[in-house]
This record gives sequence, structure tokens and C-alpha cells, in this order.
Amino acid sequence: MSYFDAASAAPLHPVARQALTASLDEGWADPARLYREGRKARMLLDAAREAAAEAVGCRADEVVFTSSGTRAVHTGIAGALAGRRRVGRHLIVSAVEHSSVLHSAEVFEADGGTVTRVPVNRAGAVDPSGYADALRPDTALAVLQSANHEVGTVQPVAEAAEVCRAAGVPLLVDAAQSLGWGPVEGAWSLLTASAHKWGGPSGAGLLVVRKGVRFAAQGPADERESGRAPGFENIPAVVAAVASLRAVRAEAAQEAVRLRELTERIRARVPRLVPDVEVVGDPERRLPGIVTFSCLYVDGEALLHELDREGFSVSSGSSCTSSTLTPSHVLKAMGVLSEGNVRVSLPMGAAEEDVERFLEVLPGTVAGLREKLGTPAPETAVQAGELVVDSLGKRCPIPVIELARAFGDVPVGGTVRVLSDDEAARLDIPAWCEMRGQEYVGEEPADKGTAYVVRRVR
Amino acid sequence: MSYFDAASAAPLHPVARQALTASLDEGWADPARLYREGRKARMLLDAAREAAAEAVGCRADEVVFTSSGTRAVHTGIAGALAGRRRVGRHLIVSAVEHSSVLHSAEVFEADGGTVTRVPVNRAGAVDPSGYADALRPDTALAVLQSANHEVGTVQPVAEAAEVCRAAGVPLLVDAAQSLGWGPVEGAWSLLTASAHKWGGPSGAGLLVVRKGVRFAAQGPADERESGRAPGFENIPAVVAAVASLRAVRAEAAQEAVRLRELTERIRARVPRLVPDVEVVGDPERRLPGIVTFSCLYVDGEALLHELDREGFSVSSGSSCTSSTLTPSHVLKAMGVLSEGNVRVSLPMGAAEEDVERFLEVLPGTVAGLREKLGTPAPETAVQAGELVVDSLGKRCPIPVIELARAFGDVPVGGTVRVLSDDEAARLDIPAWCEMRGQEYVGEEPADKGTAYVVRRVR
Repeated sequence: MSYFDAASAAPLHPVARQALTASLDEGWADPARLYREGRKARMLLDAAREAAAEAVGCRADEVVFTSSGTRAVHTGIAGALAGRRRVGRHLIVSAVEHSSVLHSAEVFEADGGTVTRVPVNRAGAVDPSGYADALRPDTALAVLQSANHEVGTVQPVAEAAEVCRAAGVPLLVDAAQSLGWGPVEGAWSLLTASAHKWGGPSGAGLLVVRKGVRFAAQGPADERESGRAPGFENIPAVVAAVASLRAVRAEAAQEAVRLRELTERIRARVPRLVPDVEVVGDPERRLPGIVTFSCLYVDGEALLHELDREGFSVSSGSSCTSSTLTPSHVLKAMGVLSEGNVRVSLPMGAAEEDVERFLEVLPGTVAGLREKLGTPAPETAVQAGELVVDSLGKRCPIPVIELARAFGDVPVGGTVRVLSDDEAARLDIPAWCEMRGQEYVGEEPADKGTAYVVRRVR
Repeated sequence: MSYFDAASAAPLHPVARQALTASLDEGWADPARLYREGRKARMLLDAAREAAAEAVGCRADEVVFTSSGTRAVHTGIAGALAGRRRVGRHLIVSAVEHSSVLHSAEVFEADGGTVTRVPVNRAGAVDPSGYADALRPDTALAVLQSANHEVGTVQPVAEAAEVCRAAGVPLLVDAAQSLGWGPVEGAWSLLTASAHKWGGPSGAGLLVVRKGVRFAAQGPADERESGRAPGFENIPAVVAAVASLRAVRAEAAQEAVRLRELTERIRARVPRLVPDVEVVGDPERRLPGIVTFSCLYVDGEALLHELDREGFSVSSGSSCTSSTLTPSHVLKAMGVLSEGNVRVSLPMGAAEEDVERFLEVLPGTVAGLREKLGTPAPETAVQAGELVVDSLGKRCPIPVIELARAFGDVPVGGTVRVLSDDEAARLDIPAWCEMRGQEYVGEEPADKGTAYVVRRVR
């Protein structure tokens, strides 16, 4: 079995397991109590806080342990926004943040706040000037991930932090994907992270609030974790989280080189081994272990299923793998193909032979799926001298397949109009044009669904 | 070492430890993913949910796993109040609920809601008629604990639930202290619990929302746990929580008899062994393992410290052991003595000989502390024929000690006026009168602090 979905959850690091089981005996009591068992629990918690602070590069009293990375994000954003409510109610996020950030932004909007979503380039990166342009006198908070969880692109956090600092606006950095690799540089004000992303246990997140940052914890009062994370502390999880962070950091520099070489193989070889593939994300400024690509004319869910049968656990941003049947918001913001999408995220210690086997298995798997799809010839008609493809009621990847099939009948200079009510078409038809070097004219509302117009330019 | 503070946190049950370590290997992946590791995690989570439902007496799809009991309470109250917002914005709680409930009520009030706090009798129990009287046409939710965490008194939950059901108002039962002993009877609508109270691990709480109960989860959206508990699931903790719940339930009937007998010894013998003690809480309708008493003329923090030196870990509701220097709100609501307060809460499996040793050690410890206190004679003056004791600036238990010392100089029929600015005096001077059979006349504002007036009637 090859588990290649570390960006979702990394397997428990042996050090985490050891620290967790070791601290079960001394970490169960209430650290607020003054008796012996409470004092032992407090000592474990204090030591973990010191070690976490050292790994993050902050003061111990700036560290709050939460029950998950998502909780850290929810708490951090809500508290920072409330703390600067007098300044204003404007929030800046990038378009490719984790859903916990974007959902926090939605709640803030529903409550009357205003949100600016900074766009990204085709590689998934924001430009710091995008943050500079978004800043307003009433900006309470800006949020930026250290690196993207779906495509691995590293964001210019230090530059964005500097832009924010100059304007007196705190920047919250979601470091979920990168903290295991190293501290976040720059003048950030708040930071969040999630232990199970670096091989720590479930049940432990990290929220850092720098001294001097205005912060007003929301929700019912609670004395634990400086009033910022209610509920009984999960000390064994915290101890294991911090112990494993130190352990992965000790291996990080060496392992980064090794994983980067492995993902570079995938980046380089997949487009040669599999026709009609787009590798997405920044080729240089990226996390060591993540590589993402999309395959034209392939159903993402079927691809995941086949790879699972072959022993590979990967994830996908294709619409068919989402409960809402919409493509990943990250791929959408990047404007890249979402069909047949595969994210490979290697855990630390991933074996070279597993990566090689993946590269062996992938071409046949994709070819088999493409063959099996065997869609009937598309329903086409010529209206006003233009070819119209009726893909209504059909789901990704069918509309793009039908476009490709019908395209042979379009003369150079002519246009084809694809009717579709599938959300993925809005992303994938322009992406297909980009890949094929054809002109995407645009979309128009149709009687049913949307009409996507493509001009044959070669 | 004798750990007698199970009501704060029970030591990890061996079954919890075993289940936790066993599920670390299969419970770390994302249960929402379709690959092998995700499916394994999902199976563990589903099985835990089924088992939790069976133990609670509800449907599996009514069970939400949270990161703590406090989170379950916060989420349950906020969601139920929001779900019935159209009905109205009135909340009913008892005066002796856990702080997580009372803090939720405070947040609700700050947001414009109205809260009725149902009083308790001297034993710490509510009367169901108190809930009936509190119900209004705009009542959105009522909350009642199954049993009190500080004095062990069992509440008439089924009766209160019936009163609420008849009025169409959901009742949320905070079952944190009792779920290990058995399911909560009656027509409750929501239920909360905390695994570490029954010997489960930290990091696992339970929120049950019955089908048909209107519930609108608050905060940023998240797909996990039916949208009611955001953040990556802590599956090993959940598995361990449920496994240990089943384990303690299997021993509950027998262990309840044994612990009840041990706490009965303490209830009966402490007043005989230690002079000037008030045992509080209902002598009959009570949890098996909790017994609470208060000792006149003793500093609670010093008592805890001495007992810790003797190897006993207990807690206290005395003002001196609280960060806010106010007595426990539970003791206050009951109107009982708070000074020198000790809660003994025996974990399952507590040894008889440890209880016996506690009864041996306690009298000398209390006597030693009373001797050590050796306060100087109180500053008294006679004003308008009344004895005035100036205890301003002195903390619990000094004002009561000075009252007792000065009392010898008060003729039968005469009054004494104690000036104090200590919050505990408001509770402890009337409690002293009750214990001594003297008349508490009342309190009056004074130039500094408050004047407490006591009449000698015998």
C-alpha cells in the first residue's frame, strides 16, 4: 500500500505514538488543579508549550493549543476580527485558502463584514501587490496560507506580511501545510497549524497570537488556554504533537531534498507518460511533497477508485469527488483543468519504489478509464452556421469529451458552442482551450444551462 | 497516593488506554476519503457512533462527537437556541449548572437573550415546578444537569423533561457526571457528556441531538460530524471514549453500591470526627462517588495543600481556591458554608483502605490548620449598643472566625455587625448562623464593604 495523501493527514509519526502513549499516564489530570496529578499534567503542558514556541519562533505565552487546525483557524480569525472591530470590518483572504478560512470569511460576511478575495496566478500564487491593493483603512485582518494544500504552491508570506505590517494590519498565516518543514518567516501576527499534517496525532491544533495583536476571544468564556480555547486540555495529544514536530523538523532539510526529487519525477514524467495531462502548481516555489495534475477525458472519482485498487491512496479536486459536485475552489481560482485531477502528497519517508510503481501504473490506468468511458457521439446541430453541442444533463468529464469529439468538424476560424449545466464545464472548457491552443471566446447564458463558445484557431 | 477528584477528571481506564493505542494505527486517516486508509478510519468512527448511541439510548445519527464536554455544551446550547430563534430568545438553566452552561447563558444574554436561573434547595436540587414556572411562550431551550458536579446531588431530569415536553420546549441534559453510571431517563431532547469524566481520554465529548429537535449549528460551516463539530475527527479518542464507556457501564451497578457505601462512611463519620463541619448535598438522591463537606474556621486552599501532602487529591469550592476569589456558585446557590470546603469524588475502583486512611488523617489536618490560623483577637467596637466587628480587608475564613470569637460577648437578644469586603462572607456568615442555630438578620451596605448582622437567640 502506498499512502500518498499526506496533505490530508499524515500517518502517525513513531515519535508521536511514543509520546502519546507515554503521556497517557501523567497527562490525564486537570492541569489547573494544585494536587500532585494536576501539577504533573501542568508540567507536561508547560513543557510542550515551550517546545512549540521554540519550533514556531515565538514566545510560549503566545501559543494556544486547540483541538484541531480548523478550530485554530476559526478561533484565530474570529478573535482577531473582533479584537479590531473598531478599526473596521474588512477581511482579506486569498482565493485559494483552506475551507476553514473561507467558511470563516462567509460567516463574517453573513454578519455584515466585507471580504476581499485576492486572486492567484495560474500557478496558484498570490502577488503581494494583490494584498497591498486590497488593504483599506477599515481592514481588520488579512489571511494567507504559507503554502497551498491542493497544489503545493508556496505563497510569498514574508512579503505579504511586510505589506500588512506597513499598513498596521495583522496577518494570520495558515501554516498547516508547511510548519513541519520549518518556521514561517516574516512579520506575521497570528499563525495556525494542525498536528496531524506533520505526523502528529488528531486532536491537536496550534494558534499563535503575537503579543500586541488585538484579540477578543469569541463564544462562552473559559479559563483554559488563556481564554482562547475552551474545554479540557488534551495533554497527551499536545505532547505528542510537539514531540513529533521536533522530530520531523530534525529530518526536514534532508527529507525535503529527497521528496522534492521524487515529486519532480512525477512532474516531469507524467506529461510524457500520459497524453493530455496538465501538471498544475508552481514548478519551483512549492512544497517538497505535493504534486498535482489533471487528466483530460477522465472521471476523477473513477481514477481515484482505480488507483486505490492498485494500492495508491491519493485525493482529487475534481467535481465528481466533491459532495457539492463543484470543482475544487483552488483549481477554479487558478483557472486550470479540474477533470481527472490527482493530488499526490508524499508523507515523509515515502519510498522511492512506490513512486516508481505509481509512474508505472498511472498510464495504463488513465488509458483504461478513457477507453471505458466510450461515450456515444455527441448530439450536435448546426445553428446559424455554428456547431452546437448539447451536453446538458451530463457531468464532468463528458462535456469536454464531447467538445473534443465535435471539434474535428469545426473549420479553422469557426466556433463551437457547448451547452452544459455542469459546474465543472465553466472551468474545464477554458482549460481545454488553453491546453489545446484554441481560443476560448466566452460563456453566455442559454435557455438551459450555459453556452461555452470556443473558436478554432488552428 | 489517593486520587479523589474523579469529578474533575477520572484516571484513564485500562480499556480506554488499550482502545486508544490500538486505534492509532487505523484511525489516523481522513474518514471522508474513499481510499483504504480512509475507509478503515470511517469504519472505526461508524462503529464507535453505533456503540455510543446504544449506551446513550438514541440513534447513531443523533450522536455528534466533539473535542470536549465543554465544546458539546457550547455547541448544543448555541445550536438549539439558534434553531428555535423564531420561537423566542428565552433560556432556562438551573443555578448550579457547570460553568460551560452558565458561560453559554452569559453569552446569550450579552447577545440580547433572556435567561432564567432556576434556584435549588439547600441540598442542591431543583424542583421540577421551578422549571414549569420558568417556562414562557418564548422559551427556546431549557438546560438541566443530570447530577451536580460539586455536591453530587441528582436532579429530577425526567420530571423536568416531562414539564418541558408538555410545553414543547426542548431540554438539554448535561450528563457529564452521570453518563458512566447509566443512561439518562426521560424525554430529553439534547444531551452532552465528556469522556474523561468516566475514564475515557481527553479530547472526546458527546453531543446528542434527537431527531426532530430544531438545531442550527453556529460558526463557520464544516462538513464533519453532520456539520455540528468542525475539525478533523479525533478517531482514536472517540474509539477509546466509547470503549471505556461500555467498560465502566459493565461495572457500574456493582461499583455504584460499593462507592456509595464508601461515600456514606465519609458523610456519616466526618461530622463525628471533625467539629464544626457541614456535609452538603442530598444524602439520598446523589451520585455514588461524590461527597462534599465544609469546615468552619479553615482556609480551603491550606486544607487542600495539607491533604495533598498527606497523599490525597481533592478539590474545593472555597473562595480561596478560585482565581476570582469568589466561592463556588453551586455552594452559593445552595446557601451552604463554603469555607474549608472539600469535595471528595472517588474514581471507580477507589480502595476502601484509602477512604479509611482519609478519615484517619482528616481530623488532625483540620485541627492543625485551625490551630495554626491563630488569628489575633478581632477589632471590635460597640456602636449604638451593638457590637461591631471590623473584618475589612480580611479573607475567608477570617471574618467568620472573628464573628465566632466576638460572639461570646453578645448577650442573648443582642446583635453583632460584621463589616467585611470578602465575597465569601456573604455566603458563610448566614451559613454559620444556620449551623449555630443563631438568627441571620441580613446584610446592609456599609461605608466600606458590607455589614452582616447576626442576632444571638440562644
